[in-house]
Amino acid sequence: MSILFKNAAVLTRNDSSYEVLKDAYLGVDGKVIDYIGTDRPDRHYDEEKDFGNRLLMPGLVNSHTHTPMVFLRGIADGLPLDKWLNERVFPIEAKLTAEQIRVSSYYAILELLAGGVTSFTDMYFFPEETAQAVKDSGIKANINKYILCFDDNQTIEESMIPASLDFYNKYHNTCDGRLKVDFSIHAEYTNKPHIVKEYSRLCKENGAIMHIHLSESKSEVEGCIERYHKTPVEWFEELGTFDSPTCAAHVVWPSDSDLDILKKHGVSVVHNPSSNLMIGSGICPLRKILDKGINVGLGTDGTASNNNLNMFEEMHLAAIVHNGVNHDATNIQSHEVVDMATVNGAKLQGRFDTGVLKEGNLADIIAIDMSAVHLYPVFDYLSILTKSVQGSDVCMTMVDGKILYEDGKYLTLDEDNIVKEFKEAVEAFY
Amino acid sequence: MSILFKNAAVLTRNDSSYEVLKDAYLGVDGKVIDYIGTDRPDRHYDEEKDFGNRLLMPGLVNSHTHTPMVFLRGIADGLPLDKWLNERVFPIEAKLTAEQIRVSSYYAILELLAGGVTSFTDMYFFPEETAQAVKDSGIKANINKYILCFDDNQTIEESMIPASLDFYNKYHNTCDGRLKVDFSIHAEYTNKPHIVKEYSRLCKENGAIMHIHLSESKSEVEGCIERYHKTPVEWFEELGTFDSPTCAAHVVWPSDSDLDILKKHGVSVVHNPSSNLMIGSGICPLRKILDKGINVGLGTDGTASNNNLNMFEEMHLAAIVHNGVNHDATNIQSHEVVDMATVNGAKLQGRFDTGVLKEGNLADIIAIDMSAVHLYPVFDYLSILTKSVQGSDVCMTMVDGKILYEDGKYLTLDEDNIVKEFKEAVEAFY
Repeated sequence: MSILFKNAAVLTRNDSSYEVLKDAYLGVDGKVIDYIGTDRPDRHYDEEKDFGNRLLMPGLVNSHTHTPMVFLRGIADGLPLDKWLNERVFPIEAKLTAEQIRVSSYYAILELLAGGVTSFTDMYFFPEETAQAVKDSGIKANINKYILCFDDNQTIEESMIPASLDFYNKYHNTCDGRLKVDFSIHAEYTNKPHIVKEYSRLCKENGAIMHIHLSESKSEVEGCIERYHKTPVEWFEELGTFDSPTCAAHVVWPSDSDLDILKKHGVSVVHNPSSNLMIGSGICPLRKILDKGINVGLGTDGTASNNNLNMFEEMHLAAIVHNGVNHDATNIQSHEVVDMATVNGAKLQGRFDTGVLKEGNLADIIAIDMSAVHLYPVFDYLSILTKSVQGSDVCMTMVDGKILYEDGKYLTLDEDNIVKEFKEAVEAFY
Repeated sequence: MSILFKNAAVLTRNDSSYEVLKDAYLGVDGKVIDYIGTDRPDRHYDEEKDFGNRLLMPGLVNSHTHTPMVFLRGIADGLPLDKWLNERVFPIEAKLTAEQIRVSSYYAILELLAGGVTSFTDMYFFPEETAQAVKDSGIKANINKYILCFDDNQTIEESMIPASLDFYNKYHNTCDGRLKVDFSIHAEYTNKPHIVKEYSRLCKENGAIMHIHLSESKSEVEGCIERYHKTPVEWFEELGTFDSPTCAAHVVWPSDSDLDILKKHGVSVVHNPSSNLMIGSGICPLRKILDKGINVGLGTDGTASNNNLNMFEEMHLAAIVHNGVNHDATNIQSHEVVDMATVNGAKLQGRFDTGVLKEGNLADIIAIDMSAVHLYPVFDYLSILTKSVQGSDVCMTMVDGKILYEDGKYLTLDEDNIVKEFKEAVEAFY
């Protein structure tokens, strides 16, 4: 199957700078972009789509989320973090079964696709269910079966490591590479050193990516220093976690030397502005992190601390919050935010053949309907993308050359049935 | 004309606390809400609308904006404030004519209505053009012809005061009360004391509302202290500006004693989070202002520092940014944000018969389509309204009992022609 988009605006990126080709053609052959240009390509395509007044851009990568938490959307609004976790979120999560995760995973993917997400990194229970939803939907994902350990005497065999490894072996690089499996340590405060050390060794041995929560709250860092006389960053470094390509979510409270450690090991950071703000974790020192040359992705976190999976909202926040906090309109530039939401996210997922629209890359593409009243005039596409565009302006989501969502309709998922099953499960549970 | 909404969720407010009536009826008779309840009302209505899966809530009040700046949307992205103003915004504004303001005013009202705004407070050039657009569209607005003065020797007759007063006399309380005119002083740094003093006296004499920019940036406050040995708040107080009900936009840099002054005079503050963040003005001390008991509205500011007129975005920011900055998930509560966007805005506009859905109030009502995937489940309507709902979820906007926008269509404005005229004007200008 081949498709030619014509009359479109196409967001291209060369040497880190973006350019929009107007009235352009973008050709997709199978899974791959085979043409971008303002002249009509010579070859024949099976289908032609007139995308006048639409902007084609790389699909968004939601680099840190817990998709099945749609089941808990907004459940603990206005509560302090400890009550949020201990009184609302944890007691509910303790009761969730694979079936609830199944319906929630499909439901979340509806929201992701409609909002222009072509790939996500997920961390939650029963990831086998999420894996199946990824397989059926056609979206990309890096998922994991993360480890927890609260017992200093737990053996490796008793630990969550064997199950995590089994999950890796069974699912990694399936669905023709769409589905990848990462290793994952929930966090420092939910684990023990001997387990983390062995698991980190296995991650390296398998050539896998590690996904962790890191330095999210001030109390997390203070607790770690009290327990180990080390910051969480130092703790993970010493245990060998960063010897694998690592993706660290939040990173709101790093010290300067923590950032040096992250840079030294090529650790990627995921910025989660909605969640960090909503539950009062604090302000991630984004400018400092970017200035270190650290790769930074963007994520929504789960919908109990957000309360949606809207990556355009995260882009908006990343683009303006740090300017305000630092009293500097130039603190974060629009192109940096677009990078975070696309190519940087692809990188931290270990996907180096996507994230930028160019010939030879995989066709992970979304379209923005630029005919919306709030999207005119356009003096600067990146300004409009980060500060005017809404998730609802996404009118097409394509993954690996296959259109999964277009003009409000899902092409691989049965929306009505997914919504019905999800609502029944929610009503039965609460 | 009378309309009965049935099967709707209705957001009501009693003694400052919100409640949602489910499967409820809301009746509108002429301009007024004549029934809210879960039992079917006895009387006959001309039209019945089944609003199952829709939430009815008060229309949003955009309490500080410069609507015709849609003509400059996003024009100075990523520039520091002085360059933003002096190199991009001011040179363009100097060339704008009444015709450009005319087409821009209609265009902006399309965006406002689609995003659930039923009333706005505007400050810009050629307000006669905006007044006409308000008249034709059916929206409510408080507009003004603001004063500037850079000459210590300017007489009252030479000043902008006579024109401002003429505008007030001609337009105030027209369109059956929909259109109100405020007095307006652009800012301390763009005016002179003798002019501000006389204009403030006239405002009081006329029983009018005063609208000003106040303590938006740190340099504004520092400049005022250098010039007058007073903060801008002290300066305006001394000149009698606060002897009229006053609406002060931004207020990012007030001192504690400034807040006492604002409270003493019953000055309302408008919070403009997007603008304050984007152009690096800083973080408004919102919790402190609310704790003083000061009335706080919410506004988008103009689209060159935003870059849209989306009040749900402002609600989202107001609801989460201060939690993050203050490391406290309870810093700003959802109900406070909904108040700011509705009833508080109505108050500062001098509209005491709207802003809350209750019998006897004017029918300024919007509907949210709750069937969207990202709006389920709902554990807490206020959490969903402030942190999940998008401007695009607005499916009806009614002002004074008249539906102006429904399901993507405008009922009083010719969208195609307005868009066409606006685009032609933009293309001819730049």
